[in-house]
Amino acid sequence: MEQRLSLVTLGVADLERAVGFYASLGWAPGNDWRAQGVAFFQAGGMAVALWGRDELAADSTVEDPGGWGGVTLAHNVRSPAEVDAVLAEAETAGATIGRPGAETFWGGYSGLFIDPDGHPWEVAHNPRWEIAEDGSITI
Amino acid sequence: MEQRLSLVTLGVADLERAVGFYASLGWAPGNDWRAQGVAFFQAGGMAVALWGRDELAADSTVEDPGGWGGVTLAHNVRSPAEVDAVLAEAETAGATIGRPGAETFWGGYSGLFIDPDGHPWEVAHNPRWEIAEDGSITI
Repeated sequence: MEQRLSLVTLGVADLERAVGFYASLGWAPGNDWRAQGVAFFQAGGMAVALWGRDELAADSTVEDPGGWGGVTLAHNVRSPAEVDAVLAEAETAGATIGRPGAETFWGGYSGLFIDPDGHPWEVAHNPRWEIAEDGSITI
Repeated sequence: MEQRLSLVTLGVADLERAVGFYASLGWAPGNDWRAQGVAFFQAGGMAVALWGRDELAADSTVEDPGGWGGVTLAHNVRSPAEVDAVLAEAETAGATIGRPGAETFWGGYSGLFIDPDGHPWEVAHNPRWEIAEDGSITI
């Protein structure tokens, strides 16, 4: 199995609302999501999808107890100021701020927002991880 | 917020076991994970991390009811035969097979395994998504 990830699908309660939230952050689906009932966003060399959580659970052959399930996403940026700017943008779009931007124990700066479906996103500046112009990171 | 994802962190019960599982699939951490208590894997222009689920929940400012939480990963490959090969490799490494490889309603071929911490991975061949030599996909 090659060391890579092609797609992360987030289960959502209301696809219209979920697409609207990410659209407010400036994201644009790359497919005809209304017709297909699933939204795909090109994200560098991979994709992020939004799909009904019930359908995703069935397709994933898992029971869904509700709530968080041990997966957190992160979006790395180039400066602490950019962390604060993205968190403010997310809050305006309807996210809950879990942690405001602050210095971290690992020597960076981060905060965290939770999207309308409960999916947490850390927004981080890690001075040791290089971010290329296209947004890709090298650990 | 740029349309990209930098890191997906999977919460795990036992870091040694979790790293061992992904190592069995041929993945190699890019950091000194034993010393740092977290493992990072370079995955194309992003990273996948394994970290204690309790610590991840606290850092993510969420309650953890246990079980799945609405996030499923996918690993796309270049042929149906490769789907079957990756599923067999995962099963040998200790994964549970949720669905064996089969044709899908969306015109591709996929199966699904669940890692030892309950994180589902769909392994898929989507004839409409181009996979570059470096493994990156274009939707």
